[in-house]
Amino acid sequence: MSKSLKDIAKFLELECEKDLEITKLLALKEADANTLSFFHDAKYLNDLKETKAGAVILEEKFLEHLPEGVVALVTDEPYKKMALATSLFTYTPSVETHEPKLLENAQIANSVNCGKNVTIGKNSKVMAGCFLGDSVTIGENCIIYPNVTIYHECKIGNNTIIHSGTVIGSDGFGFVSKDSSNTKFYQIGNVVIQDNVEIGANCTIDRATLGSTIIKSNAKLDNLIQVGHNCQIGEYSIVVSQVGLSGSTMVGQGVVIGGQCGTAGHLKIGDRAMLAARTGVTKDLEGGKVYGGFPATDIKLWRKMQVALLRLAKGK
Amino acid sequence: MSKSLKDIAKFLELECEKDLEITKLLALKEADANTLSFFHDAKYLNDLKETKAGAVILEEKFLEHLPEGVVALVTDEPYKKMALATSLFTYTPSVETHEPKLLENAQIANSVNCGKNVTIGKNSKVMAGCFLGDSVTIGENCIIYPNVTIYHECKIGNNTIIHSGTVIGSDGFGFVSKDSSNTKFYQIGNVVIQDNVEIGANCTIDRATLGSTIIKSNAKLDNLIQVGHNCQIGEYSIVVSQVGLSGSTMVGQGVVIGGQCGTAGHLKIGDRAMLAARTGVTKDLEGGKVYGGFPATDIKLWRKMQVALLRLAKGK
Amino acid sequence: MSKSLKDIAKFLELECEKDLEITKLLALKEADANTLSFFHDAKYLNDLKETKAGAVILEEKFLEHLPEGVVALVTDEPYKKMALATSLFTYTPSVETHEPKLLENAQIANSVNCGKNVTIGKNSKVMAGCFLGDSVTIGENCIIYPNVTIYHECKIGNNTIIHSGTVIGSDGFGFVSKDSSNTKFYQIGNVVIQDNVEIGANCTIDRATLGSTIIKSNAKLDNLIQVGHNCQIGEYSIVVSQVGLSGSTMVGQGVVIGGQCGTAGHLKIGDRAMLAARTGVTKDLEGGKVYGGFPATDIKLWRKMQVALLRLAKGK
Repeated sequence: MSKSLKDIAKFLELECEKDLEITKLLALKEADANTLSFFHDAKYLNDLKETKAGAVILEEKFLEHLPEGVVALVTDEPYKKMALATSLFTYTPSVETHEPKLLENAQIANSVNCGKNVTIGKNSKVMAGCFLGDSVTIGENCIIYPNVTIYHECKIGNNTIIHSGTVIGSDGFGFVSKDSSNTKFYQIGNVVIQDNVEIGANCTIDRATLGSTIIKSNAKLDNLIQVGHNCQIGEYSIVVSQVGLSGSTMVGQGVVIGGQCGTAGHLKIGDRAMLAARTGVTKDLEGGKVYGGFPATDIKLWRKMQVALLRLAKGK
Repeated sequence: MSKSLKDIAKFLELECEKDLEITKLLALKEADANTLSFFHDAKYLNDLKETKAGAVILEEKFLEHLPEGVVALVTDEPYKKMALATSLFTYTPSVETHEPKLLENAQIANSVNCGKNVTIGKNSKVMAGCFLGDSVTIGENCIIYPNVTIYHECKIGNNTIIHSGTVIGSDGFGFVSKDSSNTKFYQIGNVVIQDNVEIGANCTIDRATLGSTIIKSNAKLDNLIQVGHNCQIGEYSIVVSQVGLSGSTMVGQGVVIGGQCGTAGHLKIGDRAMLAARTGVTKDLEGGKVYGGFPATDIKLWRKMQVALLRLAKGK
Repeated sequence: MSKSLKDIAKFLELECEKDLEITKLLALKEADANTLSFFHDAKYLNDLKETKAGAVILEEKFLEHLPEGVVALVTDEPYKKMALATSLFTYTPSVETHEPKLLENAQIANSVNCGKNVTIGKNSKVMAGCFLGDSVTIGENCIIYPNVTIYHECKIGNNTIIHSGTVIGSDGFGFVSKDSSNTKFYQIGNVVIQDNVEIGANCTIDRATLGSTIIKSNAKLDNLIQVGHNCQIGEYSIVVSQVGLSGSTMVGQGVVIGGQCGTAGHLKIGDRAMLAARTGVTKDLEGGKVYGGFPATDIKLWRKMQVALLRLAKGK
């Protein structure tokens, strides 16, 4: 997809001094010369200063931090304007089905439905009732169990197993709420699942708002897990049933997340951290430690808290 | 569907002094002259006094509150008798599929299965593997993503998006447990989803026991959310992933419910209330305030509770 | 399936003094003469002493407890070796579909997909988009709502209702994590659902690692519930929405488990216990009592804990 920056600016009702061909919308950090990006949170000021974007939507007061040559679209509401811009780049779903490309010994059940340009790798099996959207690719030696849905543009690596009912690439939850309105921030990224991953039944792994939600090699996910837009789950990490990861949670390598844990968004869990069941994570967690409770704390301290409360209640 | 009150009473092994044509079973408040209703909870005494029902199942001691002209079916077990009555009005699922009525430019994938009398509105798309039960209607400009299931009689408004794997109209969880038996309270209501609603992936929205479960216009639901029978979610409200709303939870307008929250049944959350992630609601919450914790309390107080507990554990 | 013990031992790189025909892998307690079992947890020493297995994988130091005549496969890593052994007995999924055997008046929708040797009992209905794997049997008078997935070898009793999107028999979550690797413990058991059971929408009920996950007669499950491998849910028990039962949780008879509860694995909940919503169970619970909180405790004590904490925070 490709649009002129002038046309985009016109649609957004913003001034635009120079035209450009825009092919992608991405975060400041991932942007290149044909990308329109946006800046709406002072936390990412360094990303603004170093962006390679072609154009950026931002407030006037941050103009001074914009690298030379980057075109500015100035507004008081950069987040809302970017949301509107995503509507120009969003995918239009189609009810048509097409023949997928089956590589050597790949097999699909008759009832599988595919969009355009789907490729299924060597020795992989896609079972009954699955849906694979436009441009989905499945690697080698995968098993996709019945009734899995994989939305357009998502990529599945090699030796990966996905259990029934799981949905990969549904829209991330993004709305700009203001004055009793909920403007949709169209979710124009995708999901990338690497190699040797196993994902349980009835999970939901949302596509990225911009860019990719990534499940790295050898990660193992249990059932009924929610992975929000733009999350990353590191190599060899284990996520137990009913965990919910809010948008942009960054899970390190070799992390173990117990059942029914939850995380607030935009935080990091360090390598080899272990979270007891039902831990509620509200800020970054250092790697190599064991956590419990809500808000998450050192597990020993959390156990002390339980004991102290019990004593208090018993009047001892 | 239509039955004579005498026949119903006979089936329930109850006396009945006057015959009536009964076409519906509904709560006291929603009942009209051709409705059989029931009274089993003193909390709803005002509804009994003002009911417009044709007939009511109730205990003898409440007879004095029954409006004049309403036929009484007297029993010691009104809840169980009503449960039995629902078995006479329940829907019999069919494995047959039928052609839906497609309004202008509506499109469905070949693999969509429909019951009888399904209508799909202008410009709407229903994607592969969806099931739409008898008498389902879909409004205009909707997108129903692959592998969604919508049970019989449910109604979807205009400009609504439903993501994959979501189930709309499954039975509410209703059993009369007594003496080691679980009698099913058949769920004979439906689900009504209004306009501009978005519902994420793998949610479950149960049909009402009697009447309708209602998701009002502009509400936005994330993934893996449970909405119990007879819930209402108000306009512009936002519900984050993995929330569970028990039966008859009434969520006001512009409410924000954070991830993994839960509510006990039969309670109200006032307009513009905000619930932090993982809040557990056990009674009505006033609108316009921010809550956290379990049981839900003022968020500032809840934070103080966390700090106090931490201090106690550390012996300070 | 049948393999020689010598061949299995060779694959595992273990010594084997005597050959046997091995047809099953099972826990020590359930094993018979043609079974290979394993011992990896001192907690089950009595099971070892009384096992009827043909052969057992175990550490050298426990050899003395092995009943006479049982063949030993000695290793320092019995759990990992058993995991490897399961790979020899695991099922290979197939994308082919077959005609099921329909008993008197059984009905299936056209779009239902079945594996080999599927039998559907008298008067049962299987609705659109369901998948029934190899050797699945459905009893009499069942309703399987649209888009349910039942994996190979699972058994459904009579008068059972399963709502849409539910997945029965997906792999239990079993990995041997060591030195940055996650070796899959193949899940070669099944799920048995007895009579008069109702299971809500979008639940996940994992097959047993070895043996069966069992939902007993008259149990009722709400929506979005996770039942781990080898769990048992007793007769007449009620499980409310979004509960998560970890592997090998043994739920007694007439138990009520409130919404969003969770259990750690390998524990027992006694008959007629009641768990308030959101209870987190970390050890065995005696029957006939009411529990709340996390970790689960007597509900009255838990309420006192809440009150005490509130007072502390308010400085009273």
